[in-house]
Amino acid sequence: MLLTVSHGGNIYRAGEEFGIPEDKIIDFSANINPLGISKRVIKDIVHNLKYLPDYPDPDAKELRLEIARHHTISAESIICGNGSTELIYLIVRALKPKNVLIPAPTFSEYERACKSYGTRIIHYGLRRENNFDINTDEFIGVMNGDKNSELTIPNSPLHTDMVFLCNPNNPTGRLIQKKDVMRIAHAAKALKSYLVVDEAFIDFVSDASVIQEVEKNPYLIVIRSMTKFYALAGLRLGYGIFPLKIIDLIKQYKEPWTVNTLAQKAGVAVLNDTAYKKQTLKLIKKEKQFLEKKFKQLGINFVDSYANFYLLNLSNAESMYKELKKKGILVRLCSDFKELDKTYIRVAVKSRKYNILLMKELSQWLKA
Amino acid sequence: MLLTVSHGGNIYRAGEEFGIPEDKIIDFSANINPLGISKRVIKDIVHNLKYLPDYPDPDAKELRLEIARHHTISAESIICGNGSTELIYLIVRALKPKNVLIPAPTFSEYERACKSYGTRIIHYGLRRENNFDINTDEFIGVMNGDKNSELTIPNSPLHTDMVFLCNPNNPTGRLIQKKDVMRIAHAAKALKSYLVVDEAFIDFVSDASVIQEVEKNPYLIVIRSMTKFYALAGLRLGYGIFPLKIIDLIKQYKEPWTVNTLAQKAGVAVLNDTAYKKQTLKLIKKEKQFLEKKFKQLGINFVDSYANFYLLNLSNAESMYKELKKKGILVRLCSDFKELDKTYIRVAVKSRKYNILLMKELSQWLKA
Repeated sequence: MLLTVSHGGNIYRAGEEFGIPEDKIIDFSANINPLGISKRVIKDIVHNLKYLPDYPDPDAKELRLEIARHHTISAESIICGNGSTELIYLIVRALKPKNVLIPAPTFSEYERACKSYGTRIIHYGLRRENNFDINTDEFIGVMNGDKNSELTIPNSPLHTDMVFLCNPNNPTGRLIQKKDVMRIAHAAKALKSYLVVDEAFIDFVSDASVIQEVEKNPYLIVIRSMTKFYALAGLRLGYGIFPLKIIDLIKQYKEPWTVNTLAQKAGVAVLNDTAYKKQTLKLIKKEKQFLEKKFKQLGINFVDSYANFYLLNLSNAESMYKELKKKGILVRLCSDFKELDKTYIRVAVKSRKYNILLMKELSQWLKA
Repeated sequence: MLLTVSHGGNIYRAGEEFGIPEDKIIDFSANINPLGISKRVIKDIVHNLKYLPDYPDPDAKELRLEIARHHTISAESIICGNGSTELIYLIVRALKPKNVLIPAPTFSEYERACKSYGTRIIHYGLRRENNFDINTDEFIGVMNGDKNSELTIPNSPLHTDMVFLCNPNNPTGRLIQKKDVMRIAHAAKALKSYLVVDEAFIDFVSDASVIQEVEKNPYLIVIRSMTKFYALAGLRLGYGIFPLKIIDLIKQYKEPWTVNTLAQKAGVAVLNDTAYKKQTLKLIKKEKQFLEKKFKQLGINFVDSYANFYLLNLSNAESMYKELKKKGILVRLCSDFKELDKTYIRVAVKSRKYNILLMKELSQWLKA
């Protein structure tokens, strides 16, 4: 049986219980840029509505060329997807790994994708006392099968043959430094094990991406989301960068037309919108400073974050989650993440107005 | 190795060779409603752009309720998809059939989906001399394994355990009458073999759908596209109606968020646009009469069609296809369909202006 997973960001279900319409929900449970969609992109979408009767370009060629230009990589190494989630499933389906190493807690779709293809999963538990950081040496040891006596099952390699890393990690916000990702990538190559680095939140960090390393390592895959930083979650857009050695194999398993025309056009527009990018980074930095100051004032335990969200540790987090929901404020209760429990919630960095509101609610809750 | 399949409707690649921009291509190769998107739907999409920063509803609840109301069926039996194509792959992935029966020629994604999961395919060849119609008794015989000595492979049932039917069929336009679909569905149930009826083009026919029969037959699945009749191919929208007995299993294999927010909102809008539906049926009827009259005048062999396209049989169809392409007119050369060859092309029914243009081109070609 597969996992039933839950995610943040379901504004459509959130308000039903208490009769709150979806556009009245204040959503801290999905980690979306509080700036909203760039006006340029909205204009571009409206202009491109005329293309909707035609099928989308199944190769997303215009968008791939733009992504290639943006990262200075080859357009031939790129596959666009219905969010990065499509690419997670596609990678597992095409490469058919047997033993997959996944840190915990992390984004749950890696595990769900593996389970849906019957793949065995080995968890690497991240510990609160280590700030939920990976110990690179220990992690490479697990990849090699050092601590995995279980790995002696028949027809299975003695080491892991695929590794997923979410960097920065969701829901902890912790970053693996580029030099450490490169050490893990090097170890993966030596093992002929694929390393999939999900950089869904890396636009919020500078100089940490390994996207340009893919062409040098035939076992390194990077996936990217365009829905968080560019506030396009409803439109669905992501991409993957693959070693050229496996790109044809991956394409053979790709379902056609998964990326709709408006997503393709919007993707081109956002990559050219440098003003929006600058404005976003400035806003997020300022709001993170504000939130961290408030967390400290209120004595709230939070994990230092490199992304646009925070993992908070509070007693009674579950009751607070429920109370906030009644008021139309949605946070992500983290009790369904491995290694976490119902004392953890994840909150997105939003605009000042909403951040003030959240802090006011948390303050009242802690006093009560 | 999987199939490399080609499809009609790729306006983005069509003009590259001759420097024709995509919005100048006259596309007879995709079978899209020539009315274009309903103005009501365009308005609705623009109004709903505000939801794009939020994730789509993964359950597409509002749309499922509307589809349920439209067909008088249970919303619990419906799963929405990224076009009906997502549902084809989902069905094969979840139900894991061993021997799948597929008529030929037909839409190529059934075979591609089966091959991507390692499923064996048995083709039922449709013959020109039978007007590409299925012989129901013979077909049921093949389902039962009567003529399949091959079916004695190990670990495999002696009969087919899944059947795909495209009704009306693409690319022939031929309809299997409801009573015959029901006979096949009955035989499938007796065999415990799933029958998947793809009704992508059934909106152009009245009284032929078996959508309301799903609740009575635990082996009957119907899939629908909303992109052809409603001219929304670029937005990606389809749905499937599943027996309640298997709906949870299917959902376990469903990738999340595949149907973008604008597609969900547009789907609700089109189902309520009865004026558009009436206008479409009237237009298609009139244009089909016009085209059939012209085909006869020019002595062009065409297959009687129940859908919004025609399969034409012409000597030198391949050269004509190439000549038309140079002029920015795209038709679907059918040489890659099993049982067809390069003397077949498929053309969509478009608006009078374009239909006149196509007939003029065909007439000149035949004279030359």
